[in-house]
Amino acid sequence: MLEKRFTPNWIKKAPKKNSYRSVFKWGAPKGFKHPNKNFYNLIKQELELTDEDFKNKKNIGNEKIICDSPVKLDEKHIKFIKKIVGEKNIKTDDYERVKYSTGMTMLEVDALRNKKHYSIADIVVHPRNKEEIKNIVKYCNKHKIPITVYGGGSSVNMGVMPKKGGISLVMNTHMNKILEFNETDQIVRVQAGMMGPDFENALNNADKLFNTKSKYTCGHFPQSFEFSSVGGWVITLGSGQASSYYGDAYNLVFSQEFITPVGEIKTLEYPATATGPKLNDIMKGSEGAFGILTELTMKVFKYQPKNRQDFAFIFPTWRDAVNASRTISQGEFGMPAVFRISDPEETITGLKVYNLEGTPLDKIIELKGYKHGERCLCIGHTEGEKEFSKHVKKMVKKICKNHGAMYLSGYPVKKWRKGRFADPYMREDLQDYGIISDTVETAVKWSDLHKVHEGVREFIKKRSNTICLTHASHFYPQGTNLYFIFIAKYKDIEEYKELLNGIMDNIQNYGGSISHHHGVGKLFGSRMTKHLGNEQVAALKALKAHFDPNEIMNPGQMGL
Amino acid sequence: MLEKRFTPNWIKKAPKKNSYRSVFKWGAPKGFKHPNKNFYNLIKQELELTDEDFKNKKNIGNEKIICDSPVKLDEKHIKFIKKIVGEKNIKTDDYERVKYSTGMTMLEVDALRNKKHYSIADIVVHPRNKEEIKNIVKYCNKHKIPITVYGGGSSVNMGVMPKKGGISLVMNTHMNKILEFNETDQIVRVQAGMMGPDFENALNNADKLFNTKSKYTCGHFPQSFEFSSVGGWVITLGSGQASSYYGDAYNLVFSQEFITPVGEIKTLEYPATATGPKLNDIMKGSEGAFGILTELTMKVFKYQPKNRQDFAFIFPTWRDAVNASRTISQGEFGMPAVFRISDPEETITGLKVYNLEGTPLDKIIELKGYKHGERCLCIGHTEGEKEFSKHVKKMVKKICKNHGAMYLSGYPVKKWRKGRFADPYMREDLQDYGIISDTVETAVKWSDLHKVHEGVREFIKKRSNTICLTHASHFYPQGTNLYFIFIAKYKDIEEYKELLNGIMDNIQNYGGSISHHHGVGKLFGSRMTKHLGNEQVAALKALKAHFDPNEIMNPGQMGL
Repeated sequence: MLEKRFTPNWIKKAPKKNSYRSVFKWGAPKGFKHPNKNFYNLIKQELELTDEDFKNKKNIGNEKIICDSPVKLDEKHIKFIKKIVGEKNIKTDDYERVKYSTGMTMLEVDALRNKKHYSIADIVVHPRNKEEIKNIVKYCNKHKIPITVYGGGSSVNMGVMPKKGGISLVMNTHMNKILEFNETDQIVRVQAGMMGPDFENALNNADKLFNTKSKYTCGHFPQSFEFSSVGGWVITLGSGQASSYYGDAYNLVFSQEFITPVGEIKTLEYPATATGPKLNDIMKGSEGAFGILTELTMKVFKYQPKNRQDFAFIFPTWRDAVNASRTISQGEFGMPAVFRISDPEETITGLKVYNLEGTPLDKIIELKGYKHGERCLCIGHTEGEKEFSKHVKKMVKKICKNHGAMYLSGYPVKKWRKGRFADPYMREDLQDYGIISDTVETAVKWSDLHKVHEGVREFIKKRSNTICLTHASHFYPQGTNLYFIFIAKYKDIEEYKELLNGIMDNIQNYGGSISHHHGVGKLFGSRMTKHLGNEQVAALKALKAHFDPNEIMNPGQMGL
Repeated sequence: MLEKRFTPNWIKKAPKKNSYRSVFKWGAPKGFKHPNKNFYNLIKQELELTDEDFKNKKNIGNEKIICDSPVKLDEKHIKFIKKIVGEKNIKTDDYERVKYSTGMTMLEVDALRNKKHYSIADIVVHPRNKEEIKNIVKYCNKHKIPITVYGGGSSVNMGVMPKKGGISLVMNTHMNKILEFNETDQIVRVQAGMMGPDFENALNNADKLFNTKSKYTCGHFPQSFEFSSVGGWVITLGSGQASSYYGDAYNLVFSQEFITPVGEIKTLEYPATATGPKLNDIMKGSEGAFGILTELTMKVFKYQPKNRQDFAFIFPTWRDAVNASRTISQGEFGMPAVFRISDPEETITGLKVYNLEGTPLDKIIELKGYKHGERCLCIGHTEGEKEFSKHVKKMVKKICKNHGAMYLSGYPVKKWRKGRFADPYMREDLQDYGIISDTVETAVKWSDLHKVHEGVREFIKKRSNTICLTHASHFYPQGTNLYFIFIAKYKDIEEYKELLNGIMDNIQNYGGSISHHHGVGKLFGSRMTKHLGNEQVAALKALKAHFDPNEIMNPGQMGL
């Protein structure tokens, strides 16, 4: 009995100031989401662990960062850049150098837990405006000093790691404001370093802040929403949880402004234009390799949460869930904003994490013949104009029922929405006990979905004691994404790397994209040639050579 | 009385075989749409002409093409290329050389009427497959022989003119088939030379031809539909009359296959992917300057014409029509497929051309206080799933009424739809009597719309006896297009050029784009630097230099 009541002593305190943990911890220092009892038991069971395994933490990284990488940048360069940004906005201390050189990959986290780090910047610079960035880029181009941009820092592919040292340019310190609200055109000009919640808050309160007639929303809510910047969304081609309705960051950006080593670019501001290949598109997803994204003009939408219609379903099988999703995505009646289908293994976990297991609802599902290990959870909601939103829900319901689904009310999606940005916080808790919880994701056409899903699952499940949860959450007429979460005990980082590379190999071999919305970074750069082919990589390299002849812009990014 | 009964003796016979007229005549040889009585009278009145001016045609160009431009390409090259494509698929006669070097600009038409022509190809080649094109490109790259691609030939900016001679590569002779129908993903792989109506017919009959469960539509119906190729739609960034719902060609293409001097490119087939700048986008709108588009995978949609809901309205003023359009475009309830608003001058003409003037409907409009010279016509229809389509119409109606519009039933849009591809046929009739009827178009944000519309109109109307009709017909949340039709008597081509250049200057000065959906071609190439700025042009030139180091691909296109 005592055994059953055991709860691991999850860390509930903010990391120490300037500690390794303060850098690698996901999200707000005081923000936590600990595994609940059901999820904890599932992990113990699947990973063949006992409470004993959750009694001693290791490498929690609560020590102050001390690094022995000397600043290699010549003092005269530092002096010059100091003149540009001011004394206060240039840092060379260990904490800042590590913090602003590190993203959120398991590799980086593991290094920090072991008091190590990957390549770090020599100096951290917090520019105050475009003029300063222009001067920095000009100077650095002349002296071949590498610049790597740091937006919100939530990169999960070593996108912010300054591979060749130099400068980490932090956008969110000063360049984090809305500059212009154009309600007529429903566009907002914003500095690249503005963080997601600040941006959304300002839009939700536009009537008060900008004297607009309506309130607005950005429509972009990635899992990293709270710790990602507007510039980061676009430069890495992110996708939010409501993308099926609002579109990906790719669709949400109207124009961009860049400072590159060969000049400045302000892309055109037309709703469409037939005047050659669009620079706005060419720069999207360039991940800092062509230049520095300083400002963006984003499309915005009326904020009308009262029109939201929640729903949830349980499907007999994954195939049913996928077929219904495809029918909805190709149905031409509009799309739900949030729409997610979980495969059988994720459904089991989902019911546990959201405390649905064992509830009367769970009992009914069971009684109706939706079998544990086969059934699939689907949650979502619609948005948009009131009657449109209602009609989309009606059609979703009709199609799901036609595919054997049972309607579960809006309760599960309400639960999900409430804690939706907090799930990654559990990562640290698990890793304190030597368990990795990591994610990879891919894009697939409908016709490749099962092949990729089954192939990747087969690879992961061949490994004993490894949890693999999969969902699809971004829908298009031509396909969707697959999001794989894998949870396993790991001895050392080499074991993790082998697993990660194996998963990625299988994704590529079965026809999935390297990434649907996480980007490429430095982690997957070497996969680009297989992904794109030599000719397409050569074209990207030609653009890189044009914009950045001295290779100072985020060196190593995307393998360019 | 006699005067009033006069009808000009419009040409009603197909042009002579191999004649100049057979090249410049818009559309099908036996296809005609002659100005009706109302429109004829309007032209006489506005241009201060009399029936006398319509008694003698000049330069109708019905003579057989004879040109004195010798083939400059070395015989050994011709021999080699003949070996690749076969004797039958290579032509050097005057007619083919002129036909496949000439598009539909007023400049080209005027030249042909005067038995002249712009630069023409040395030889016309009709390749049968990708392998042949690959060999041709390889050979031409080695020997620096220019290649200009001819799709459907409806270019209105000298896009198909082989500025430096060489080869005109005709795609629609052999490379005009659907290669693969993937119903699961709703995508169709098609050869670039397939013509619009053939493509749409095949999709409408996909159940019979490809054994699909549903019938499909391509959703793309440009004014040039009957005489444009699928490859041409994408490579010039075309936009169809139903683009507000289906999207522009830009949105409709899923992937593309190119043969370039530095290799072949088959762009990725994912519904979305966060793996750097997308080659699919980089190649869109490249207008043959980077390589030859050989195959496209197009998104398709369920063909459900029975769900169509027609509507038409009359607005008190242009401002009301624009405001209603913006409210609809930002309304988040879905978009009508076709939606068009005509400014007051076009409304007058529209009512005449569609024979609505003087009808009981016209009388009611007048009685209700919608004033001639102020009122604006709006026509359109909705598509998509049945209830969605109905709801969009309902919302359109509600919003238009809120902006003072009167509902006119679906009759005008039915009239418009019936003859919608035939309007350009009137061009030849008018030009037979020395009257130009030409069009330019631009894209604008909502906030720039009135400035551009008023500015351009002011310029055109400063010129005496010049008709200027404007409509907006492609809608986005951030703006729309403006389509200007100008009709005037012209002495010579220099006078026309001055007018055209003046209009374009004004479009640019007032903030419009060089083109919304006609493309750039060679006609507007010199405007690209002002349009994009030096830095963006430099990036396009870098791409050009990468793909086409010997400058053989459509030389002069887009000013690259």
